[in-house]
Parts: sequence; structure tokens; C-alpha cells
Amino acid sequence: RVASSRLASTFDESCSWGSTPDGGMNRLSLNNDDKRVREWLIEQCKQLGCSVKVDQMGNIFAIRPGKNNSIPPIGMGSHLDTQPAGGKYDGIVGVLSALEVLRTLHDNQVETYAPVALIDWTNEEGARFPPAMLSSGVWGGAFTLEHGHSRSDASGNTVKSELERIGFLGDVPCSYEANPLSAHFEIHIEQGPALEAENLRIGVVTGVQAMNWYNIVLRGREQHCGTTPMNMRADTLLCAAKMIQSINQQSLALPGARASVAVINSSPQSINTLSGRVQFNIGARASSDALLATLDVNLEKACKEVVEDSVRLDESIMGKSGEGGVKMEVWEKIWECPKTVFDERAVSMVRESAREVEGGRFKDMVSGAGHDSVYTARKVPTAMIFIRCKAGISHNPAEFSKQEDIDAGANVLLGALLRYDDY
Amino acid sequence: RVASSRLASTFDESCSWGSTPDGGMNRLSLNNDDKRVREWLIEQCKQLGCSVKVDQMGNIFAIRPGKNNSIPPIGMGSHLDTQPAGGKYDGIVGVLSALEVLRTLHDNQVETYAPVALIDWTNEEGARFPPAMLSSGVWGGAFTLEHGHSRSDASGNTVKSELERIGFLGDVPCSYEANPLSAHFEIHIEQGPALEAENLRIGVVTGVQAMNWYNIVLRGREQHCGTTPMNMRADTLLCAAKMIQSINQQSLALPGARASVAVINSSPQSINTLSGRVQFNIGARASSDALLATLDVNLEKACKEVVEDSVRLDESIMGKSGEGGVKMEVWEKIWECPKTVFDERAVSMVRESAREVEGGRFKDMVSGAGHDSVYTARKVPTAMIFIRCKAGISHNPAEFSKQEDIDAGANVLLGALLRYDDY
Ligand SMILES: NC(=O)NCCC(=O)O
Ligand SMILES: NC(=O)NCCC(=O)O
Repeated sequence: RVASSRLASTFDESCSWGSTPDGGMNRLSLNNDDKRVREWLIEQCKQLGCSVKVDQMGNIFAIRPGKNNSIPPIGMGSHLDTQPAGGKYDGIVGVLSALEVLRTLHDNQVETYAPVALIDWTNEEGARFPPAMLSSGVWGGAFTLEHGHSRSDASGNTVKSELERIGFLGDVPCSYEANPLSAHFEIHIEQGPALEAENLRIGVVTGVQAMNWYNIVLRGREQHCGTTPMNMRADTLLCAAKMIQSINQQSLALPGARASVAVINSSPQSINTLSGRVQFNIGARASSDALLATLDVNLEKACKEVVEDSVRLDESIMGKSGEGGVKMEVWEKIWECPKTVFDERAVSMVRESAREVEGGRFKDMVSGAGHDSVYTARKVPTAMIFIRCKAGISHNPAEFSKQEDIDAGANVLLGALLRYDDY
Repeated sequence: RVASSRLASTFDESCSWGSTPDGGMNRLSLNNDDKRVREWLIEQCKQLGCSVKVDQMGNIFAIRPGKNNSIPPIGMGSHLDTQPAGGKYDGIVGVLSALEVLRTLHDNQVETYAPVALIDWTNEEGARFPPAMLSSGVWGGAFTLEHGHSRSDASGNTVKSELERIGFLGDVPCSYEANPLSAHFEIHIEQGPALEAENLRIGVVTGVQAMNWYNIVLRGREQHCGTTPMNMRADTLLCAAKMIQSINQQSLALPGARASVAVINSSPQSINTLSGRVQFNIGARASSDALLATLDVNLEKACKEVVEDSVRLDESIMGKSGEGGVKMEVWEKIWECPKTVFDERAVSMVRESAREVEGGRFKDMVSGAGHDSVYTARKVPTAMIFIRCKAGISHNPAEFSKQEDIDAGANVLLGALLRYDDY
């Protein structure tokens, strides 16, 4: 069994880098706080006798040797980066529980058959550098290294330049083939309301829903808000507003699907000049690839209809000027991640471990959020453990899981790891 | 008659500060280009023997003496600041035509009875420091000096600190009472399509429509876009989108009224976190104060309905959490500017001058945009001259007026000034 109080105090220690006055975290990937917590993590693992590798995407592998070090380590990974106004649990629970498992093995002088690796995956959130799960994605072959390195934040800093800046551009090749694992286990907070609703601590995650992200840019005309007749406008923000509402309706019309717009930028930022350029992103998710494909078609159709209406209106009025209405300059899918089904054997080991820790009090579930395990699952047997979180609130400073739920999850992780090691 | 080629080359010279590669201008109020063009303007006026005063809002008064310098000068003013993606005509035509009128008086050794002042009013656009016409507003008593000094841009720089920085925080008190004019005349591009549609160069402006600006802030919850059920969200961006559409509908439903949303900001900027805070502005205008009052009521009602729907939905689902749905944290009118009717005598002098310059080819009209003349009209006889602009396009790099139309306007200004001086 893990040591609850040590896990709790380790939590406090690690969250000193990037915590915000409202009780949340702002530790965007590769910022200075991420640098410090990474250095701290490496130090903690070295104290347990682990060797540490940093790969070309800054992923940290801290490896505790086993009896047979010629076979790849069994991984336990998640992420230490957070949302800009995030909580203390998303990702952090996964890495710190893995650290606690290593410490528990160490204290009990357990010698595993295979080596065991704790992994901190870079830029899981995708908040600073879209898309999410970028570096587990490179490791798992979903993205090229070049794609990973060239993603950039809103200020134009790239992943590669920020890795260099904070001293985490490692030289270990970032791929399963060059730096393999035997398996990957991850605890994560549920980030949804299902476990709480059924008064359960633990979920056994059998897979992850399908996801697409989009980038949309609309072009219209900067025009004077006070003088331009309503029917002569090419108002991109009005079009974007219609699209956002329509995107919501498309999503409500397809049970099992979800589409959200959370990022919008309009320019120029002047109260009396109609916005001539609007950029926004859509995040779409669905319980099956087929449903996501339907949502994909419906979203594009709905948004193009808004633009066509604007052009129709415009041509009848502005025909002579030849200017046209609002145009969709960019409709780009910036991320596609099909549905993931985790390995049956790895999942059953989590389930057996959960039965041991929680009795019958757990349930199988599918994750609504993406996780690094999605991309490790492309290469190695992977499974996940969910723990209950308050009111399903996540990506929010109010994100909360009870210590006893985290302890339970860490014990399930320990049990699953040892089972996989036995196997 | 003014000298067309001199006016044209002065245009090119003055637009070298802040011009953009697309043929437009980006000379936001009190930026470095505004500093340079101000210094240039003062130099030009001094070469004509003018004395120059800078007031506490940075308004520049360049005064050409008359026979009787104990009476206040007759003003010809407009502004040299532009929109962030603006054109070369809005405001600039007014100041440079006034300069050309001064040069024409100088060349012809005309001694006026009253002194004559060219005025460059600070921050007319309101693009950098909302609201518009800020410094003519302080001069005209619509705003206190403290209000004027404390307006700030998106980065938090205040008008006062920027005036200091560029060396234009003058010590002349900014008020009609301390620094009076006898009258105010302004040429401006129409910024709308009416003159072009009737193939006229010149409009005689009899007044300006009523205007209100609003600032709205919505608060919801940052939540995970992938895991949060659609009916548990407090999604501020979705609410804002519904409001923007509703604002448009309210405006279409009231002929003679116009409401536009051009500025929006959502946070946190993360594709997978629902926006917990959205800020946007509304610009509302109407042909009468009564109509604007109706629009005001309708806009607030429509936006509050969107919020109430969100709360209703939320309470049925989230009741136990006590969190509630989206809230309207701020609904603030940041600018109110009632309808302006210009002085009959000043307008008739513009009309007589237009008749002389253009024969019968001009029309009376009401301005859809605000101008510094709105605030001078609160204190002194004021009138405006509109000139035709291409396709009614303004606040856009493609803004354009023909040189012959500018010349005609400058000649109408000269005639109106001399008539007022005679009077
Ligand atoms: N777990 C988590 O919040 N990951 C971010 C990726 C996603 O958007 O689902
Ligand atoms: N003329 C002009 O564009 N002024 C800006 C003030 C307004 O928004 O009408």
C-alpha cells in the first residue's frame, strides 16, 4: 500500500511551482514553472536510484531497474503541465501517484522482474501548444518529430525553442522503436461527473472517445460600425457568432457527440470598426468514429451555410463593388484522434487490482478526455484508472479529488503494475 | 481657392508616419507615429506664423492672428489619429484641409477679423482609448479631465501617461471656458455611401445621430470541453454568440437604429477549456434619442434573456452545486452621446459656401459617425462639410476620396470660414 501522507505532502511540494491564488494552477507546458517542477521530479527519482532519460520532445523517463533490464520498462506516465486556469489534479495525480508507487517499491525493497519507468509526457494539455498529447503522440508515431517541434504558442514560440530554453531538449530519440516500453498505465481524475454520481472512487477505463480539433479563419471587411448600412456589411464576428450557435445545435442534435468553441480572436480590436478577421477553434468529440465523422460533416456544412448566407446577402447589395461577403479563409482540421480501445489484458489487470483495493465498488468507463495513454496504446498494452473528482469539474481552479480517492487510485496502479510485471 | 497639388503633396508627407503596406494607416492615438505627425504639423503651422498651444489633453491649437485678437479664434479642427487598420482620409482630410486653408490665407495675405485656429483633437477614433472624441469631449465639458486622463488602452497605458511619454501633456487647461473658440468647422469624409449614390461631392452636415457604447463581461465556468455534458456547462462564449446574434436582430428590427459588436475577448485561450470569461463591446446608434433609448432597452433585455436561459438550464442540473449558470458580471454603458443638431447659422454658411463652390450639387445630411464637432457644438456654433468617399468604405485601408473632392471640400471650408469671419 502507498503512503497517503507522503503522497499528500509531495503534492503540496510539486504544486508550489505554478500555483495561483485561487487554489488552481497555471503551469503551461515548458514555462519556467514547468522547468522547475521537472528538475524537482528528476531529483526525486534519482534519490530512489532511478536513471533518467530526456527525449527529443522533453519527455522524462525515470527508470527503476528490475531483475531483467534487457526488456523494456513497464511505464507509468501522465503529465505535469496544466491549463492556464487549471487545477491541481489533472495529470499531476498521474505523475505523483507513479512517484509514490516507485517510493513504495523502494521502501519495500521490491525487485520487479522488468524495469519500471515513471514518465512525464510534455505538453499533454495542448493549451499552450495545440494539439493535446503532443509528445506521447510523437513517441507513439501519431506525429513526426518535426511536427512536434514546430508547434507554436500564441506568441509564436515553438516547442523546440522552448525545450532548448528550459534545458529539456534531450537527445534520446522520441519514439517507441528507439526507446520502448512494455506497457503503459496511467491514473487520471475522471474530469466528469459519473463516478461521483454513483458514489464510486475508481473507474476502470476501457478506452477514449474520438476527437477532432479545427481551426477556422473568417475574412470580411473592416467597416465603420456607425455608418455602414446593416445590409452592406461583411461582418466576420456576426458570422462567427452564428456559427458558434449552430455548432452547439449540431452537437445537441447528435447524442453522444459534443462540439465546443472556447477560443476566439477578432481583429482589429476597435469598438467602431467591424471585425474583418475572426479566428476560432472547434473541439469535437464523439463516442464512435462514425458519429464523429457525421459530426464533422454536419459542422462544416453548418458553418459553410452561414458564410453562404452572408455572400448571398452581400452579392445582391455589393454586387457592383465585387467585394463579396464573409469568406471562410481557413477550415482546417488541426487534430484527428480516432476512438481508442485499450488492451484487454492491461485493462483486466487494472480491474483485478481495483477489485482487490475497492471490492466490487468500481465501474468500467470510457474517457471523454484525451490522455497520453491514447498514444501509448498505439504501441504497447495500455490501461487507465480513473478517480472520482468533485462535480465533474476540471480545467478549473476548483478541480478537486479527495486524498483517499487518490490513495485508492495509486494502490490500484501499484497492483496493476505488479500484476503486469508478474505476467 | 486652395492649391490642389500642395494639398495632395502635404497628404503624402503627413501619411508617411503610420502608413501600412496595404495602403492604409495604423496611427493609433498617442503612439510614436502620432507624436511625429504632431511635431510635423506644429512645424508647418509655425512656418505660417501661427502660435501653438497644447492643452492638457494634448489637443493642438495653431492660431493665426486676425485683426482683433481679443475675440476667440474661429476653429477648423479634426484629428490625425487613425484606426488600427484605418485609411488615409478619416480625420486626416479635416486637419490637412484646415492647414491648406491657413496656407491659402497666408499666400493671399488675407487678414481675417478674428484669429483662426487649426485644431488637432486627441484620440478622436476611440480605437486605442475608448470612447471616441475623448479630448474634444473634455474641451466641450462632456467628460472631466480626470476621465480623459484615466482612459486606458488594452495594455493598461493611460492617456495621461502616453501624453507624457510623447511630450504632449500641455499645460493649457482643456476647456472651452479657459481656451475658447468662436465657432468650429470640420470637413470629414462621409464614411457612408449616400453622396456617391447621388453622384455628389459635398454634403452639408446638419447634425449627428445618437450613440451609446457598452461594455459587457460574462462569467461562467472554465470546464473541460471533452468531458462536461452539454447541459452542465456555463459556457460564456456560447452565451456571447447568442447575444451577438440577438443584438443584430434587435437592430434589424428597428429601422434607423444600428448595433454592432466588433470587439470580443475570451479567456482562458485554450481549445479544450470552456471560456469562463468573455468581454465584448456593443456600439449602438440611432437617428433619434428616443429610438436609441428603445434600442437600449431592447438590447439589455435581449442579452439578459440569454443569460436567464442559461441560469434556468443550469439550476435544474447544477442546483445542488449552487454554482448557477452564466452571469452577466458587467453591463455598463461606457459612452452616451445624444443626437447633435448643428447651429443653423454655421450650417447656413457651409451651405452658402457649398453653393458657391458646387452650384446646386450638394445635399443636407446627418452624420452616422461621431466627430469632434459633436462636442464643440455643445459650446460654440459648429458645422461640418462631408466629402464623398468610395463605396462608403471607412475604417479600412481601402478608404478613398478623390483629390478633386477633397479640394472642393477645402474650398467650401475656406468659404464658410470667411463667411463666419465676416459675420
Ligand atoms: N485530460 C485532459 O484534460 N487532456 C487534455 C486533452 C483533451 O482535450 O482531452
Ligand atoms: N469619424 C469617425 O470615424 N469617428 C469615430 C467615432 C465613431 O465611432 O463614430
